[in-house]
Amino acid sequence: MNLDNIIRRISGKGSGLYKKDFLLTWEKSDEELEMVLEVAAALKELRENNISCRLFDSGLAISNFRDKSTRTRFSFASASNLLGLAVQDLDEEKSQISHGETVRETANMISFLSDFIGIRDDMYLGEGNKYMREVAEALDEGFSEGVLPVRPGIVNLQCDMDHPTQSMSDLMHLQNEFGSLENLKGKKIVMSWAYSPSYGKPLSVPQGIIALMSRYGMDIELAYPEGYDLIPEVVDLAKENSTKSGGSFNISHSMKDAMKDADIVYPKSWAPYKIMEQRTQLLKNFDKPGLGELEKLCLANNAEHKDWEFNEETLNVTKNKNALYMHCLPADISGVSCKEGEVNADVFEKYRIKTYIEAGYKPYIIASMMLTNRFEKPAEVIEYLMKYGAKRVF
Amino acid sequence: MNLDNIIRRISGKGSGLYKKDFLLTWEKSDEELEMVLEVAAALKELRENNISCRLFDSGLAISNFRDKSTRTRFSFASASNLLGLAVQDLDEEKSQISHGETVRETANMISFLSDFIGIRDDMYLGEGNKYMREVAEALDEGFSEGVLPVRPGIVNLQCDMDHPTQSMSDLMHLQNEFGSLENLKGKKIVMSWAYSPSYGKPLSVPQGIIALMSRYGMDIELAYPEGYDLIPEVVDLAKENSTKSGGSFNISHSMKDAMKDADIVYPKSWAPYKIMEQRTQLLKNFDKPGLGELEKLCLANNAEHKDWEFNEETLNVTKNKNALYMHCLPADISGVSCKEGEVNADVFEKYRIKTYIEAGYKPYIIASMMLTNRFEKPAEVIEYLMKYGAKRVF
Amino acid sequence: MNLDNIIRRISGKGSGLYKKDFLLTWEKSDEELEMVLEVAAALKELRENNISCRLFDSGLAISNFRDKSTRTRFSFASASNLLGLAVQDLDEEKSQISHGETVRETANMISFLSDFIGIRDDMYLGEGNKYMREVAEALDEGFSEGVLPVRPGIVNLQCDMDHPTQSMSDLMHLQNEFGSLENLKGKKIVMSWAYSPSYGKPLSVPQGIIALMSRYGMDIELAYPEGYDLIPEVVDLAKENSTKSGGSFNISHSMKDAMKDADIVYPKSWAPYKIMEQRTQLLKNFDKPGLGELEKLCLANNAEHKDWEFNEETLNVTKNKNALYMHCLPADISGVSCKEGEVNADVFEKYRIKTYIEAGYKPYIIASMMLTNRFEKPAEVIEYLMKYGAKRVF
Repeated sequence: MNLDNIIRRISGKGSGLYKKDFLLTWEKSDEELEMVLEVAAALKELRENNISCRLFDSGLAISNFRDKSTRTRFSFASASNLLGLAVQDLDEEKSQISHGETVRETANMISFLSDFIGIRDDMYLGEGNKYMREVAEALDEGFSEGVLPVRPGIVNLQCDMDHPTQSMSDLMHLQNEFGSLENLKGKKIVMSWAYSPSYGKPLSVPQGIIALMSRYGMDIELAYPEGYDLIPEVVDLAKENSTKSGGSFNISHSMKDAMKDADIVYPKSWAPYKIMEQRTQLLKNFDKPGLGELEKLCLANNAEHKDWEFNEETLNVTKNKNALYMHCLPADISGVSCKEGEVNADVFEKYRIKTYIEAGYKPYIIASMMLTNRFEKPAEVIEYLMKYGAKRVF
Repeated sequence: MNLDNIIRRISGKGSGLYKKDFLLTWEKSDEELEMVLEVAAALKELRENNISCRLFDSGLAISNFRDKSTRTRFSFASASNLLGLAVQDLDEEKSQISHGETVRETANMISFLSDFIGIRDDMYLGEGNKYMREVAEALDEGFSEGVLPVRPGIVNLQCDMDHPTQSMSDLMHLQNEFGSLENLKGKKIVMSWAYSPSYGKPLSVPQGIIALMSRYGMDIELAYPEGYDLIPEVVDLAKENSTKSGGSFNISHSMKDAMKDADIVYPKSWAPYKIMEQRTQLLKNFDKPGLGELEKLCLANNAEHKDWEFNEETLNVTKNKNALYMHCLPADISGVSCKEGEVNADVFEKYRIKTYIEAGYKPYIIASMMLTNRFEKPAEVIEYLMKYGAKRVF
Repeated sequence: MNLDNIIRRISGKGSGLYKKDFLLTWEKSDEELEMVLEVAAALKELRENNISCRLFDSGLAISNFRDKSTRTRFSFASASNLLGLAVQDLDEEKSQISHGETVRETANMISFLSDFIGIRDDMYLGEGNKYMREVAEALDEGFSEGVLPVRPGIVNLQCDMDHPTQSMSDLMHLQNEFGSLENLKGKKIVMSWAYSPSYGKPLSVPQGIIALMSRYGMDIELAYPEGYDLIPEVVDLAKENSTKSGGSFNISHSMKDAMKDADIVYPKSWAPYKIMEQRTQLLKNFDKPGLGELEKLCLANNAEHKDWEFNEETLNVTKNKNALYMHCLPADISGVSCKEGEVNADVFEKYRIKTYIEAGYKPYIIASMMLTNRFEKPAEVIEYLMKYGAKRVF
């Protein structure tokens, strides 16, 4: 049983993840990220063998979505339920919450009997991750002052900087597709911009991908039309990671050239970070006409790059004409979800089931982030669940 | 204890319901429908004797309501909770779901750790049941391709064709009121149109009733003003059922005549299926003015049939002036919830508590549909719950 | 262990709370209120010692919020989860519920497998508490007629008259701050109006506070600008309570004078009850222009009393310049959540953590109200939980 191998590998290991929020992959050590993968794999196997993973008899997991979501919402709900927690939505339309001072108060008010808070806040550049840290500070204070019996852990469900539950699921997918993290060494992965008729797509996925994958000795190719830059700090970080891990990092401005001999491709639209900065400013000023003009400008800019579609022709220049296509979903599929989009319909169809499998790791990644936050010795916990062997379903 | 009798009757019986969605009663055999009733009765008795029915230690039940609902929403939540599942709403305003291609994807994205999906989609004629089958196909694919560890079962919580959780609850009510399914033979049931000041009421309840009750040897009288036809295929099916079961089936166009010597009456408004077809077309075309005109026309048509109110006078022509009045609730009660409606206030009051009892079977019917979908030998499961005897409440 | 002391004190005691809704503190005896406090303290200690309080293996707790809420919503969710119940929201926008006749029906439709209903309805003077009693009557009928297997208990989560879960949490806070209920004798508490730039704040908190605290021999000072009266019946009740309990009750119209030598201060805005009566009438008549005018008038009235801010100067006249500041949160903090408000920012900051602690009792108070409603001998239940000692978290 694979579980025994996992236990052997992580046995006795403590974990720097204990009592730490999961906000950015680049704040975590390699050992910590591997622990998240191992525990996620263990939970997946336990679940698939009908063994209960309920470590909590009761307790709340708060979901705080400041942007629409189906996938991540359900992944968070699934992860919470897997461990025995009930999800309570902090729906800001229903509640009295707002920005600023009240963050501190609300963070405590929702946490009296809570074990985790999952936050998605990706609308404002420079704001989402900051907000999570404000919540974190408020919880630290509440716990140290005796307001909260437990310091709830925070899981970043997507912010302006990173989308760690996505990139870690993607990494788990690669690990399974290529056999091991080791095997990723020397593989070429292309994180490429792709055309989309919609505007203002967040930067967190491409940033999360280059920042994480650069740690595993891969050859990272970041491709986008001139002007569609990511946040410079994250790009610099990815470059450093590549140097350290023995991989390489290159930026280019032609999708087709970039795709040459790629093992893995991740074509996905995003908005230039400078536009996102302007947008954030306009949003803060409630400048509706300004936002309208910016949107028009952006869509016009995008429209000049309709050739950035991943299709048969582009696929054919990849390794063996058969690179692994990845996407966080939903993709803008030409002729299906839009007239012209990120990916050709036939090519997407070829990899469709693989993208579902890719997405399917997310509940386990989130549950693993929770488990490793809460339990100091994950191996002992997994072993207990195995030995106790309570059935999930009669 | 009644439970022992149930066990005796269903003991050893496998069930064709195993791993099958519950989409239409007419896709199920008589034995299967009886199994649903038996298991529902067993769960009801277990619950009322404070014996836990938690067969799931964790797991999600997804509720996907594409139309407003209180009753069915709470019934689904109650059934899920009874078995140990947590409800997660797929609220389409919050999520990125839409029609068409994305159904396939979303169906998988919400199902990674889900055990059941309850769907209500009754707005568009020709669409609701089709949508459920699209979801079903997507889940079949996801399961066979290894995306999903479990194939979630689908429960139809009302579509354009049928409302099986309602009609099965109604049948359970009749079984209890008349002592057995056998005793329903030769009883006269009148499914009658009734006046309502509102427009566009779905056809699924009257269709569900005639299609199901015609299987038990009853004399079915379907009464409505000229032009208020149901979907012809379902009427034909009910006629065939009546022939096979030794009952009879008659259509007439006077409420009062129809009610003569009735044992059971079900006066309820609906819209003519031809109008519903037009409405579906107009909705698809986003033709707001057209919809407005159609509504006006319909309400004017309805208003010509204000005499289709079930009242003292109509009640007095039924068997012993005392037929069993049924309704799926909420009823349009004259002088209470509207000026003129489906039923006279005094008559409704006489049967009010009975309609509550009728509605109270629904959580158990839904739970039974879930249990029989998931467990091949229901008797063994019920016996286990009885013997194990965990208390629901300390 | 404090738990042993609690057990000793409540051992063998039955409780008049059994099978009774908790709608108004003044319908409960002193012994009953003490039982609520004792059980809340026991649950808090059990939870903090990682002992499971799951008395329900399954079951629903319905939350029916007819006004916005974060704090109370999460407290109710926490309390329900603590005892093992799943929360199901009755969201009136999603559902078919409305006022009047349908209350009776809906109350039953949501209760087939429910154990508790928490209701917040504080918008209409003369309506909220009445609505709860309508629900209660409907549940009584449903239970006695065999519609419901269990009579769900109702918890008042704020109405037009009282806010018992708030005032009881506040009392628990005072009990902890001053060592015991006994120690509250002779303490001076000032329930004072305070300026707010918003309008139409409910009366339930100040009314709940004076009605409850007057039972413990405290010197109650109710201070507000001329015209900002509370409902006379509740003021009369508080006066009577004060007489009986050996305390005193005084009304005055200067915040600063009132605060002199206060041990405890509760500065909080509210709307005059006469205005709330007019508002209710206008709301019932859908008189939008009338409501607009009333709001203007009120805000103008409020603005004449901007000096009713609790600040350093006012704090300095209290006992040892150090009275305990209380608030139900969120407070209108000058220069923080509004330009000018109920309380000065520095003063609020000094007591901020204490207000969080005050709020933190609410989940346990609600859980205690549920437990004492459902179990006749609370001591036995607590003892069982202690002895059984199931861990909440592995």
